[in-house]
Amino acid sequence: MYRTHTCGELRMEHVGQAVTLSGWVQTVRKFGSITFVDLRDRYGITQLLIGETLNDQLDANPLGREFVIQAKGTVTERSNKNKNIPTGDVEITISEFTILNASKTPPFTIADDTDGGDELRMKYRYLDLRRNAVKENLILRYKVNRAARNFLDSKGFMDIETPFLIKSTPEGARDFVVPSRMNPNEFYALPQSPQTFKQLLMMSGYDRYYQIVKCFRDEDLRADRQPEFTQIDCEMSFVDQEDILQNFEAMTKFIFKEIKGIDMTDAFPRMTWDDAMKYYGNDKPDIRFEMKLVDLTESGRGKGFKVFDDAELVVAIAAKGCSEYTRKQLDELTDWVKRPQIGMTGLIHIKYNTDGTLKSSVDKFFDEAALKGFAEQCNAQPGDLILILAGREERTRKAMSELRLEMGERLGLRDKNVFAPLWVIDFPLFEYSEDDDRWFARHHPFTSPKPEHIALMDDVSQYGKIKANAYDIVLNGTEIGGGSIRIFQRDLQEKMFAALGMSQEEAHHKFGFLLGAFEYGAPPHGGIAFGFDRLCSLLGGSESIRDFIAFPKNNSGRDVMLDAPAEIDQTQLDELFISLVKPA
Amino acid sequence: MYRTHTCGELRMEHVGQAVTLSGWVQTVRKFGSITFVDLRDRYGITQLLIGETLNDQLDANPLGREFVIQAKGTVTERSNKNKNIPTGDVEITISEFTILNASKTPPFTIADDTDGGDELRMKYRYLDLRRNAVKENLILRYKVNRAARNFLDSKGFMDIETPFLIKSTPEGARDFVVPSRMNPNEFYALPQSPQTFKQLLMMSGYDRYYQIVKCFRDEDLRADRQPEFTQIDCEMSFVDQEDILQNFEAMTKFIFKEIKGIDMTDAFPRMTWDDAMKYYGNDKPDIRFEMKLVDLTESGRGKGFKVFDDAELVVAIAAKGCSEYTRKQLDELTDWVKRPQIGMTGLIHIKYNTDGTLKSSVDKFFDEAALKGFAEQCNAQPGDLILILAGREERTRKAMSELRLEMGERLGLRDKNVFAPLWVIDFPLFEYSEDDDRWFARHHPFTSPKPEHIALMDDVSQYGKIKANAYDIVLNGTEIGGGSIRIFQRDLQEKMFAALGMSQEEAHHKFGFLLGAFEYGAPPHGGIAFGFDRLCSLLGGSESIRDFIAFPKNNSGRDVMLDAPAEIDQTQLDELFISLVKPA
Repeated sequence: MYRTHTCGELRMEHVGQAVTLSGWVQTVRKFGSITFVDLRDRYGITQLLIGETLNDQLDANPLGREFVIQAKGTVTERSNKNKNIPTGDVEITISEFTILNASKTPPFTIADDTDGGDELRMKYRYLDLRRNAVKENLILRYKVNRAARNFLDSKGFMDIETPFLIKSTPEGARDFVVPSRMNPNEFYALPQSPQTFKQLLMMSGYDRYYQIVKCFRDEDLRADRQPEFTQIDCEMSFVDQEDILQNFEAMTKFIFKEIKGIDMTDAFPRMTWDDAMKYYGNDKPDIRFEMKLVDLTESGRGKGFKVFDDAELVVAIAAKGCSEYTRKQLDELTDWVKRPQIGMTGLIHIKYNTDGTLKSSVDKFFDEAALKGFAEQCNAQPGDLILILAGREERTRKAMSELRLEMGERLGLRDKNVFAPLWVIDFPLFEYSEDDDRWFARHHPFTSPKPEHIALMDDVSQYGKIKANAYDIVLNGTEIGGGSIRIFQRDLQEKMFAALGMSQEEAHHKFGFLLGAFEYGAPPHGGIAFGFDRLCSLLGGSESIRDFIAFPKNNSGRDVMLDAPAEIDQTQLDELFISLVKPA
Repeated sequence: MYRTHTCGELRMEHVGQAVTLSGWVQTVRKFGSITFVDLRDRYGITQLLIGETLNDQLDANPLGREFVIQAKGTVTERSNKNKNIPTGDVEITISEFTILNASKTPPFTIADDTDGGDELRMKYRYLDLRRNAVKENLILRYKVNRAARNFLDSKGFMDIETPFLIKSTPEGARDFVVPSRMNPNEFYALPQSPQTFKQLLMMSGYDRYYQIVKCFRDEDLRADRQPEFTQIDCEMSFVDQEDILQNFEAMTKFIFKEIKGIDMTDAFPRMTWDDAMKYYGNDKPDIRFEMKLVDLTESGRGKGFKVFDDAELVVAIAAKGCSEYTRKQLDELTDWVKRPQIGMTGLIHIKYNTDGTLKSSVDKFFDEAALKGFAEQCNAQPGDLILILAGREERTRKAMSELRLEMGERLGLRDKNVFAPLWVIDFPLFEYSEDDDRWFARHHPFTSPKPEHIALMDDVSQYGKIKANAYDIVLNGTEIGGGSIRIFQRDLQEKMFAALGMSQEEAHHKFGFLLGAFEYGAPPHGGIAFGFDRLCSLLGGSESIRDFIAFPKNNSGRDVMLDAPAEIDQTQLDELFISLVKPA
């Protein structure tokens, strides 16, 4: 037996007991003839006291950082107690120890503030995973997993596994494909989500389904994306949107209570997509703070200011208490909106001074009354700074959305310990792609249009007006989940495929099984999927999902530790009946 | 709101309540002007009574099997109660109903005894999944999943997700590979198991890990195998074999208690691999019955019977109470062992008659005393039938192992409601492949040899004698799980790779990360993986794992419903920098 206790459990009540511990050497400190070792395992740290009698052994085989040892001894009360750790009242007076495995000096320190860079820590991920910060993240992830399961189990949801080797039906994102040896020249695809399977399970009468499941998208990995990611995937039958919102609002509250101890007593606010775009400039508003977008397009027009007159959109926010921003600060903000990521040509400001006067960068065109009018529109108060952007509608709205977040950040309004959930509802069914010159499903092709908008599907000029029974759950400006009520009628589904430019043949080739299933008694149903990695990172107060994944990939989709992907043997290629094409 | 109750919950106490139900029409029966509908959902069946006033609606839109309807009405007491279903005391007198979706006549009946063949049911899997038998299997699977999680959670195991896009390191079974678009001409592999990752997690100090996880093997799908299958995958640090056996024996007992209500109070018997081979002829003995193999090679020799004299192995079993088998029965058994799958040339029998006399098919060579000697060796009693096979050792042992199971079956000794668990321990570390003319790791290359056998690794002639700290858990003749104590020292792991014919370069290319990890304080560790599909099928009393998988593949690895795998677009191939090779 390697141990009688873990390194996290000994207390004063164990004093006098003979114990055996095993773990990693965190630190070794020598005071005269006494050696103190902090021994670490998943559960904690316990101090070992190695006396003089073992010094010969220590000298012959010195202990180093990250050595794995087994130590036997007696629990004793510490004279110099450490109140910072739960085991700090005791130490183990060691009578015997064994080195189970030595360790080279790690390439970076195993500590919360490590000296290891990103690349190095990814390469030695098994060492990085030892750090307390990473360990706490994975423990949190495990707890969120359990909390979600407990909630869903208690509500009658069944965990049902869906297949990973499925059929490629690219629509939107690219599929990862898997050549089949037994079926030469044919390929499986890895699922982007279990979408069609969970719908089939509803048609099969399983009523409430869930799965915490890996999904795969072969997309370029800008930002904080991973080629494989995890969803909490759920579906329910005989429900309308309200049932789903209620149920998953309750789940979100349950998770917050379990993980953060936070009681979210209020109902989550709901906002239409139209309002989200209008007041926040994007479909995932951070509502920890107001600072809503105000449209000045009409009121700004006709005063001879060409920038406003020519603009598709003039939009403003009022930043509370910023009227005393210096010239330098304003210049810096102007530079900020001129960065290529934001792409604006300039920033206009109006200072609503605390004495009630107004001063702007466009005083030439707007008198104090006009400025006051703007301020009133923005609901600004003396002491506020009004920031205005003007230009092409989409870019300007997006830029102002970013500027709003930036100002929120600067004003300390985005406290990561404050959680502001929100349902965004009534999403458009379609979105138009200029690049492809066609309409795409905004959510996915199985999302139901609002019943009152179905008629509009007969007229392509009306597509932009069609709203869907689709919803996102947004937390602090991040989408943590989304879903929809699904189409459950064959004719409507076929109409949807046609609207997306799919021929009947193509629709049948890709989704024949689903269209078939609709004909045998498909119930009304809908669902939602939570981005599990993202949810965990938000709960853990981190920007990065990587920190919450045991073995993440880098921005090129590589596992640096494994050195994967990698070349494979010619034999493997031959067996799969594929050959390589050299990239140009 | 689509329903106030499910179809499984209404009872006498609800009589008088106004309710709304939604579900599938199981049956429609008309008695005069009254129509009875059995309405079905996941939770049960409730009888609806549709009276005269709705007949016009019914005539205009007749209800058919598998139609999805919503019905409103009042709970009333049935005059003609159905004691076979929990809702059988009541019916709903319907005031209003709506057809939510019609259904074509299903291609097979949705009933326990269906008229649908295998292929048809696979194609319409979403309909097959509606059948009660299949639904019960998936519910059982969900419950086993939950029971395993509950047990492991309570023991401090952490569910940690490991990656699906990893590196191809074929050793034994073939990997499925995934071409990388972002890293042209390189491939990921899908994991055959999370083996190396769970070991790394131990090295990272996570101490106790589990995952219920999909694994992938691109092997020919004889028998009841699936290209993707699910494991309950577990690993523990600072343990020896005894710790693991104790822990997972407890888990198995917990699952049996939860799922079957069976108290397995006795400790699971343990048998060495050597004994399993000797007494049962295979490494996964069905110990629901004895009928052990008895070696007659020595005692059968030298009596002039060439078949015995030339045989590498003469082996017998005594079948209880079968001494009165007729000539016809014996001939039939002889034909059975001559089948190509068994491959023997003949079967010898000795009848130990109830009067104490002995009569055999080899009386010419063996007198009654010799036969009695055989009977005593076999521990046979009057009334028993001794069956003997002779020939090449491996084939004969295997054949007798099969014959023993066949006789057990015929004698009704393999009751699927009796569960006889067993640990098989002390597996050989290596096994020799004649085809490849080299030694393979019997379990996998990370399995630790018994410490006292490590020295034998220096001499290839001794490889066959090396035993491993490896174990299987066997239930009713089926392996449901297996594992080992792992190598945790770099030098021993390198020796192991070398023994398997891997060069240092190859070992480093494939497993450099693992060898590296050994150098930074790897703890002693070991683990086990349960075949989750198989475990469920045994608990469900079925031979077939497919019945316990929501969307299984057929013997060619095809998903008949999806029609996958399938051809992919040239664009997809181009993006992946691969081209197809026409099979010869």
